[in-house]
Amino acid sequence: MLQYALLHLFGYKLTIDDLKNFRQLDSITPGHPEAHDTPGIEVTTGPLGQGFANAVGLAMAQAHSGGVYNKPGFELFNNYTYMFFGDGCAMEGIASEAASMAGHLKLGNLIAIYDDNHISIDGDTKCAFTEDVTKRFESYGWHTEWVKDGDNDLAGIEAAIRKCQQVTDKPSMIKLTTTIGFGSKLAGTGGVHGNPLKADDAQSVKKLFGFNPEESFSVPQQVYDLYHKHAAQGAAKEQEWNQLFQKYQAEHKTEAADLARRLSGKLPEGWEKKLPVYKPTDAAIASRKLSEACLEAIHDVLPELVSGSADLTGSNNTRWKNAVDFQPPDLGIGEWAGRYIRYGVREHAMAAVMNGLAAYGTIIPAGGTFLNFVSYAAGALRLSALSRVRVIHVATHDSIGLGEDGPTHQPIETLAHFRALPNCMVWRPADGNETSAAYYSAITSKHTPTVMALTRQNLPQLELSTLESALKGGYVAVDTPNAAVTIVSTGSEVSIAIEAATYLQEKHGVVARVVSIPCFEVFDAQTKEYRLQVLPDGIPVLSVEACCTMGWERYSHEQFGLNRFGASGPYKEVYAVSYLHSLSNDHFTDYPQKFEFTPEGISKRALATIDFYKGVPVRSPINRAFQQIL
Amino acid sequence: MLQYALLHLFGYKLTIDDLKNFRQLDSITPGHPEAHDTPGIEVTTGPLGQGFANAVGLAMAQAHSGGVYNKPGFELFNNYTYMFFGDGCAMEGIASEAASMAGHLKLGNLIAIYDDNHISIDGDTKCAFTEDVTKRFESYGWHTEWVKDGDNDLAGIEAAIRKCQQVTDKPSMIKLTTTIGFGSKLAGTGGVHGNPLKADDAQSVKKLFGFNPEESFSVPQQVYDLYHKHAAQGAAKEQEWNQLFQKYQAEHKTEAADLARRLSGKLPEGWEKKLPVYKPTDAAIASRKLSEACLEAIHDVLPELVSGSADLTGSNNTRWKNAVDFQPPDLGIGEWAGRYIRYGVREHAMAAVMNGLAAYGTIIPAGGTFLNFVSYAAGALRLSALSRVRVIHVATHDSIGLGEDGPTHQPIETLAHFRALPNCMVWRPADGNETSAAYYSAITSKHTPTVMALTRQNLPQLELSTLESALKGGYVAVDTPNAAVTIVSTGSEVSIAIEAATYLQEKHGVVARVVSIPCFEVFDAQTKEYRLQVLPDGIPVLSVEACCTMGWERYSHEQFGLNRFGASGPYKEVYAVSYLHSLSNDHFTDYPQKFEFTPEGISKRALATIDFYKGVPVRSPINRAFQQIL
Repeated sequence: MLQYALLHLFGYKLTIDDLKNFRQLDSITPGHPEAHDTPGIEVTTGPLGQGFANAVGLAMAQAHSGGVYNKPGFELFNNYTYMFFGDGCAMEGIASEAASMAGHLKLGNLIAIYDDNHISIDGDTKCAFTEDVTKRFESYGWHTEWVKDGDNDLAGIEAAIRKCQQVTDKPSMIKLTTTIGFGSKLAGTGGVHGNPLKADDAQSVKKLFGFNPEESFSVPQQVYDLYHKHAAQGAAKEQEWNQLFQKYQAEHKTEAADLARRLSGKLPEGWEKKLPVYKPTDAAIASRKLSEACLEAIHDVLPELVSGSADLTGSNNTRWKNAVDFQPPDLGIGEWAGRYIRYGVREHAMAAVMNGLAAYGTIIPAGGTFLNFVSYAAGALRLSALSRVRVIHVATHDSIGLGEDGPTHQPIETLAHFRALPNCMVWRPADGNETSAAYYSAITSKHTPTVMALTRQNLPQLELSTLESALKGGYVAVDTPNAAVTIVSTGSEVSIAIEAATYLQEKHGVVARVVSIPCFEVFDAQTKEYRLQVLPDGIPVLSVEACCTMGWERYSHEQFGLNRFGASGPYKEVYAVSYLHSLSNDHFTDYPQKFEFTPEGISKRALATIDFYKGVPVRSPINRAFQQIL
Repeated sequence: MLQYALLHLFGYKLTIDDLKNFRQLDSITPGHPEAHDTPGIEVTTGPLGQGFANAVGLAMAQAHSGGVYNKPGFELFNNYTYMFFGDGCAMEGIASEAASMAGHLKLGNLIAIYDDNHISIDGDTKCAFTEDVTKRFESYGWHTEWVKDGDNDLAGIEAAIRKCQQVTDKPSMIKLTTTIGFGSKLAGTGGVHGNPLKADDAQSVKKLFGFNPEESFSVPQQVYDLYHKHAAQGAAKEQEWNQLFQKYQAEHKTEAADLARRLSGKLPEGWEKKLPVYKPTDAAIASRKLSEACLEAIHDVLPELVSGSADLTGSNNTRWKNAVDFQPPDLGIGEWAGRYIRYGVREHAMAAVMNGLAAYGTIIPAGGTFLNFVSYAAGALRLSALSRVRVIHVATHDSIGLGEDGPTHQPIETLAHFRALPNCMVWRPADGNETSAAYYSAITSKHTPTVMALTRQNLPQLELSTLESALKGGYVAVDTPNAAVTIVSTGSEVSIAIEAATYLQEKHGVVARVVSIPCFEVFDAQTKEYRLQVLPDGIPVLSVEACCTMGWERYSHEQFGLNRFGASGPYKEVYAVSYLHSLSNDHFTDYPQKFEFTPEGISKRALATIDFYKGVPVRSPINRAFQQIL
């Protein structure tokens, strides 16, 4: 509500009625601020710690954009990033990760104000949070200030901010010791965190601060005048900037054009022509390497692309050959204009920092980790989806196919999780052309995050995959007339499914079609007519994916997958060989305990599927009784 | 591998052949250590930061068990917990959260050794991690030591450990500055992190340390002798402890019997009789309150139950009335024997700490947060499932029904995510008896974590719900002969589905059955015969859940859910009223934009379902062509 009230006072398109509609249906003032709904809200926050990391991302974006565009006499990007955080944010690991990152990166333009009110929802922070926050921030390399009487010492607050503005080689944290609900009868208690004040208390607070206690939602004209004066100053500054930019356009034509294009949201003309195209005869390559080839091919034509990894650069293949690290120049290992971010082992902060980078408007961020560890970042990724920002998760080692690292690193539930997340694209490409399609889709989908699930192991190039077909999200990978079954699959299992089709033909005289669905979300957006061509009526569909089967019922009648944890071993053995440990309880001991993601294993289940639907009229799963709420 | 090698040397059931089978299929030496597979492995780690938080949980369990059982002359629980962590762990937010918690809790018996080798997978930590780790730990309230030459200074290491053992009111961290791959040609580089040494390098390392360079997997007898001597000392200590416990049994009969029972894994006789039972005429109550009633009813008979919350105690209703906080006594706000943990806003550490608490063997931990923020803890929860520990997540505010907090707090994908996780029970009870069943199941499932999805809003008591029926995971909630459709639902939507059945009868003359499936995992474990009784052949099934529909295809032909984000507003309005913001892209604008989780909304879709399946032979979704790999 503080954000909404301030935006209203500063003249953003947020009326008194909008404030009255706080937390009401269809209002632009939802319970927690959402960037896409409300003018002036820059990032979607509420889940604790996210805003902290977003701010670090915004400050990094400023430093990077300054590094790229600023020229002598043209300080185009020199804004400060201000961020408020409370005790709750300070407790969250994501904020710790981001604070450590900001300290390492020496983000001098980042100023954080810590609302040190000693109260969280459970009451006094002495019950759970007694660390020395200032010392901790100093250990990260931050400059710190302390305003002891944050309730009253406005001059002290201003002085602290001015001091922090002068510190250019460190982020700054101002510990502002305050009383929650200052002025209320409940001051200093958790009672004022989430509940409105009672009528008499609200009246007495208004009185205390010199307002008419009888009026509600009433702003004295002199308050508006004061804030509007500030707003006018802001508008004048914007005007100044625009004039500076006009001069810049004259003197730095190329950079100006590039910046104008980025700010307009347009991609460079023809960038997509650089995406690699593969022939079926090309060598088998791991999709993490195919992803690297995409980055290598497009990074020159797409200067807003900023890659990085959570300390798995060599495994995620996220770094193009001549990449320069994004680092404070005085470390001697990179520069502000660098386009490769060393996120450290901080998956959650990485995802939220990417939200901040994307929100700044000049960057398309891509960050790598193992698919299994994108789960560490689930809290941030769901806000990417909700706030509709374009971020790319390069999620390698995407199944039991990662082999030796074992079950602790092998995703099972992960694809289902992110496919279930609204407005999140999950791509699991099966070969080179599908990987290029994934990049095309991720980069052109301006309002949607993308998780790219990529293999450690090599994948052959498919016969029928093209950029065009893959961009439909699903297509026919083996088309045979008079098929008895459709096998639908993704990623590393598509080529095994294709082998299974051959096996079925040769060993059993059974004809199978094969469909690849690299992206559910994109496939779902195709016409029903097209989807029915891919998954036609009349024959049953068997899905094959070496992960949990959840979600596959939407496209198939029967599902072959792995609703248990994986195994540690060489990947081909893990895919194929009997595995005797029974994970589950007694109820399940009579279930099969082989993985069998082999042509034979798939064929066996395809035959069972055909058998099961013999004599039964089969309707495509695309046909539904009613439309879903999307 | 270090853990496996040490366990072998100390005489655990881990042979040289097991070591040779490192990372091979069906071995007990998987890529990362798994507690349930390998003798001597106490917690399942690998995903960075988890082990750190597990250790904090183990140390908390020691402090708590000491508080409960230790008596003058009987120091039954006084073990130290030792933990190793590296730069990668130190970067993870979960470790920061846990370290802050450990400092607050003054866990004097926790000794962490920081392998300060300045190398992570991306190379020198100077590229991402330049904070002052020692200062950070001091800010959390830890005692710290520094051994500068960790490669050679064995006496210094021992002295540091001894010093830390003397510090009883703070956890200790020993910064051990080391060289990664010490002795190898690749010493000091990331090249020795994950790859085996080359043959010549391995030979020269062996030579350097006085081993025969020609031998592999060979342990000199004097090495075995030395380690076995230590093991014998350990065995003697165990013997001593057993004798002490025998005396304790004589002098503290009740406590001894209780401890012996807990260590045997048995629950107290008849504890389950305390679970509340409800009649259909009982008042409507929110399931978070029903959960509180369970905790209130059973905490006395189940002393191993230790509850807590990530700073949402009043919202999660996780604290029984006379609960005492688990706190260091000198803070004056609790005691070691206290059974309520103030986790702070640290969801990820809470979940991993609970894994440690459960692994200790004397505690059943339960911890609360909003369902949406269990996602912050996904990394730890998947290890609960993999390592088969009994932890209970009290996950309240489980849908758009939380209302005003809005989409940032309303889970959509969350149930699907945790249902997709193997060996994880997700309970979403619809009323009082189902909530009691959820507790019964969670507490008796000794090798499975449970997520309990609970409402903020009130739920009526159902006509046909009993503890017994709910414990089948799914049952018939409205049984009517000659039904045209089965409506299957969970939690807060079951009673609306029941209203829909009445509505269908009254307005359309259509007969509907209603099924409640509070727990997929438990329902799946029932006989096929039973499951077919619940979801019979012959009539179509419509599922209703105010979350994403993913996974419901397993039990239904058509799905009514919410494959988009929610809305901020009073919950009844959010459930029912038209909502105009269209989240998705242009492809979806022609989709319905009302939520309609109302009797009318459900009825409309039930009629569409009946219509769609008119004249089509309908097979129950329980019938499958082949069995899944579980």
